[in-house]
Amino acid sequence: MNLPLGYRYSSVYAGIRKQQKDDLGLIVSGTPAAAAAVFTQNRVQAAPVRLSRQHLRLSRGVVGAILVNAGNANCATRTGDRVALASCRALARELKLPVSQVLPASTGVIGVELNPRLIVNALPRLVSGLAEGGFSQVARAIMTTDTAPKMACFEARVGTGVARIAGLTKGSGMIQPLMATTLGFVMTDARVAPARLRGILKRAVEVSYNRISVDGDTSTNDTLVLLANGAGGAVIRPKDEERFEEGVTVVMQELARAIARDGEGARKLITIHVEGARDNDAAARIARAIANSPLVKTAIAGSDPNWGRILSAAGNAGVVFEPARADIELQGMRVCRGGLAANFVEEELKKKLDQGECEIRFTLRGSGKGYACFWTCDLTEKYIEINASYRT
Amino acid sequence: MNLPLGYRYSSVYAGIRKQQKDDLGLIVSGTPAAAAAVFTQNRVQAAPVRLSRQHLRLSRGVVGAILVNAGNANCATRTGDRVALASCRALARELKLPVSQVLPASTGVIGVELNPRLIVNALPRLVSGLAEGGFSQVARAIMTTDTAPKMACFEARVGTGVARIAGLTKGSGMIQPLMATTLGFVMTDARVAPARLRGILKRAVEVSYNRISVDGDTSTNDTLVLLANGAGGAVIRPKDEERFEEGVTVVMQELARAIARDGEGARKLITIHVEGARDNDAAARIARAIANSPLVKTAIAGSDPNWGRILSAAGNAGVVFEPARADIELQGMRVCRGGLAANFVEEELKKKLDQGECEIRFTLRGSGKGYACFWTCDLTEKYIEINASYRT
Repeated sequence: MNLPLGYRYSSVYAGIRKQQKDDLGLIVSGTPAAAAAVFTQNRVQAAPVRLSRQHLRLSRGVVGAILVNAGNANCATRTGDRVALASCRALARELKLPVSQVLPASTGVIGVELNPRLIVNALPRLVSGLAEGGFSQVARAIMTTDTAPKMACFEARVGTGVARIAGLTKGSGMIQPLMATTLGFVMTDARVAPARLRGILKRAVEVSYNRISVDGDTSTNDTLVLLANGAGGAVIRPKDEERFEEGVTVVMQELARAIARDGEGARKLITIHVEGARDNDAAARIARAIANSPLVKTAIAGSDPNWGRILSAAGNAGVVFEPARADIELQGMRVCRGGLAANFVEEELKKKLDQGECEIRFTLRGSGKGYACFWTCDLTEKYIEINASYRT
Repeated sequence: MNLPLGYRYSSVYAGIRKQQKDDLGLIVSGTPAAAAAVFTQNRVQAAPVRLSRQHLRLSRGVVGAILVNAGNANCATRTGDRVALASCRALARELKLPVSQVLPASTGVIGVELNPRLIVNALPRLVSGLAEGGFSQVARAIMTTDTAPKMACFEARVGTGVARIAGLTKGSGMIQPLMATTLGFVMTDARVAPARLRGILKRAVEVSYNRISVDGDTSTNDTLVLLANGAGGAVIRPKDEERFEEGVTVVMQELARAIARDGEGARKLITIHVEGARDNDAAARIARAIANSPLVKTAIAGSDPNWGRILSAAGNAGVVFEPARADIELQGMRVCRGGLAANFVEEELKKKLDQGECEIRFTLRGSGKGYACFWTCDLTEKYIEINASYRT
């Protein structure tokens, strides 16, 4: 992995989660970076989400460090705001940064007080451990029910050099980001004007994190930050922007897909293509309705080519369409043509559905050119097992 | 059970489902009844739904018989319309009724051709078996993944006599009726003007079938019919209407609750009260968001008082509210006050959550008087087991 230049990473076990594995992560940019961020649309927002918004406003989009913990969402607690601020202040002192250049982020259980001493006491160890190679350590430290760390990188060649882009993320349950994401941090060493960076992030989120769902629940802590520190020398001029944005999008789609693939209890990544809708928005709504249908997700878990459930889920998307113009393909095999059963060999298709990746293609004929791609996962007994006893 | 007068019922095994238990049911009113009905809002609608709408229009809301089958939804098939019409025609001949006075209804798998001979050949047996006491037989014949038949009755005393009301219904998965229901048939022997009957049904549906969800999926076949044949002598005059409507509502709420309680794989009925919202609609949206959250439903399955998930689900309802004004009670114990953890003894509450009925009360202080009650069930491994192999 060719990591972006000018960033250092660290993680330690601060004692926030019971299990003794790293639960506190730190990302530092050598020179303060231009930053863009999106946050959860949930009415209930965690303290670190509120404070990060405020810091971005105060610092005019300049970020020197991101402090992130797992094991506690720091949400719906009496002391949440104070804990988030105290942690940022202590880190700012340690790093000699203005406090507004520190962004906090948290993930874990909601409604349990977070002890700020645990974080503050761990900071010296955390800071002294900073290293350019600590990237994957942070990816591990922010895992909750994730079964694997999630990282992605890409190099975009632009006129002025190479823009290295790398991201890390977490997420497995409570995943249906809307205009935001679970925790995700994407770093680049290109130089990008802050206003440009915001536009790039917004468009990239729309086709990556906003196109995944594990269980239809949107978290209170969703945070996605994109940092650009300019340490690599490449400058993103207007004519380079498209290529750079492609790179950011590639990294964010890979991260988002990794979340869907690692959905709680999931055995299969499901990719849903919807095409021929009135517009992209209608396509995305149909794709989301299919992705959120427990009946579709359990059918895929059981390798059951029950396309009627897909058609029925699409019919619930709140989008007007003619069922008689709907075709459905599963794993590239036509199972429904014009809203009716197509000829397919069930045994053959069942075998294809046993694979770790499943593709659903829902096509409307003669309605328009709207297209959306959406990722989700199958729904298995394991999801229940994980979530019936998450706190205990 | 004091059944409404003037109705007869029958069921037989017609060979539509593999398992040899009754799969064809018939409800006949001795004198054609005034009828009101609501149907699924899914864009994909089964042939019997379309034909029932048409028959109600043609007969001006007069119904003599309802023919219902399980084992096949007669939806998204080449011959669906013809099969539904042929079945109704054959029955109309047998009963000497205009065909438009016969309503068809189906439930079962989508996208598999339904052989009309199976139904037509079974009709003589079905008709000859008609009996006043066959009510519970029909309730059994329409079961799919249901573990129990679902019936309810009530006697409303009005000025002109007694209005007997009885209903039967089915449903366990693909349950989130919207402005309609799964299959449900409610009979009364009161005399009610058709226009009145429609108003009564619409309002009663709003607070019963439209307030339940098992998995957030809305079926393609949802049908709820209310018949009033006047055979009991009671006449519903304007001043009796409120009392009669209460009776219909009681029966329909009991049926709806029975569906939620028997949700696929469910061990617990969950009743959600939301109060203090801006208006009833806002309350219902919050209640629905809580009811549809897999994380809330799995927590209840595990008797885990994880109220943060309830608060987070409410925050996703698309309703503006202040989390700092939200209180949550579980089984009558305050777990969240003003968006923060309340003092409660976790072990005690866990024990209370082990019961077969769970109550969630979500209260907003100082926002309004909006109230809604909603029913759902817990989400267990069994739901997955049932749905990963429904067709096989």
